[in-house]
Amino acid sequence: MDGLILYIANKNYSSWSFRPWIAMKAANVPFEEVLTQFDDSGGNPKFREFSPTGRVPVLKHGSLHIWESLAIIEYVAELYPEAGVWPYDPADRALARSISMEMLSGFRALRGACPMNMRREKRAIDLPDGVAGDVARITEIWKTMRHRSGGPFLFGAFSGADAMFAPVINRLDVYDIAVDDDTRSYMAAVQAHPAWIEWKEAALAEPWIVPADEA
Amino acid sequence: MDGLILYIANKNYSSWSFRPWIAMKAANVPFEEVLTQFDDSGGNPKFREFSPTGRVPVLKHGSLHIWESLAIIEYVAELYPEAGVWPYDPADRALARSISMEMLSGFRALRGACPMNMRREKRAIDLPDGVAGDVARITEIWKTMRHRSGGPFLFGAFSGADAMFAPVINRLDVYDIAVDDDTRSYMAAVQAHPAWIEWKEAALAEPWIVPADEA
Repeated sequence: MDGLILYIANKNYSSWSFRPWIAMKAANVPFEEVLTQFDDSGGNPKFREFSPTGRVPVLKHGSLHIWESLAIIEYVAELYPEAGVWPYDPADRALARSISMEMLSGFRALRGACPMNMRREKRAIDLPDGVAGDVARITEIWKTMRHRSGGPFLFGAFSGADAMFAPVINRLDVYDIAVDDDTRSYMAAVQAHPAWIEWKEAALAEPWIVPADEA
Repeated sequence: MDGLILYIANKNYSSWSFRPWIAMKAANVPFEEVLTQFDDSGGNPKFREFSPTGRVPVLKHGSLHIWESLAIIEYVAELYPEAGVWPYDPADRALARSISMEMLSGFRALRGACPMNMRREKRAIDLPDGVAGDVARITEIWKTMRHRSGGPFLFGAFSGADAMFAPVINRLDVYDIAVDDDTRSYMAAVQAHPAWIEWKEAALAEPWIVPADEA
């Protein structure tokens, strides 16, 4: 069988690319990455060449193209069942999926106001309605799961659930959103993970593109 | 182990309740349902008693509470691996998850403009921007998957992917949105499924509540 190819966009900006990338990297799943930069529109017509939705990420495995970050994570979890992409305990795995899908479908206020930006200098902005509620729910999820597992990650070892929330950790950090020590400790654990560091270094090395919010 | 309990809201309105319910019913997974009606706000503070998010659906299994419709579907697929909740072929299953997650996270224009309403008389409304694009993408997904599988459902037999799109079938129907014959044929197959019929009959038998859009 052919190897896995993960199609992604800019490492500095593409939060959805980051999720399966860090899940696969942290689990030592072998894959090749193909990075296609966003154009001025924040998309790229070229994405259509490998993506049925015209968006990234997409995982290619032979003739199969899989889209949606969490569907990619599920696929590699099935392909490498011993890699710990999901927690091994069925109850943990169920909760990992509940919170991952809450992330996939929700937290729109935070996502809209605070785009992921790996190289942004920490600086607070005025946060629109809804962001505080999103942050409260996200940090409640993190606390509940780390209290249950004992940490340092949501289910003990790093899993696909941590991957789904990884871009949020960048957002809370670079938009300087106030969080408590317990949350800060979780963020630090993820930011110290070798896969995070590898992604961030690549993001910082990308050619500069300056969207309006960075001008 | 205790039996499964599925917490849902009104069958007439709760599209997210409908998804795991029809997935489990169609797969003959045994469960008890507990229905708590929406209040005037379209939610219900009582949902907090069994739901970590304050929303439905929630699946209870012993002391474990699982939320998000698709996480519930994943859980019962693991618990009953022979029930066909997901397609058995790994590539089919990967695509089933891609399209289910596209449904979970997207199609907001259609969902906002055309709430599920099982007893609504078929009547067209003015559709806001974005709905036509959502409908085009949804019907493209259905066509692609049914062409691939041969139908009548997305992956041949009824699966969790059909369950994820079931509320959309009601929307296209009752808001009288124009679709082609192939799409109509898929909609008819789902609407003829015994699990659909059972849900719809229960929805029609519910006490009448008249939200503003039905007045």
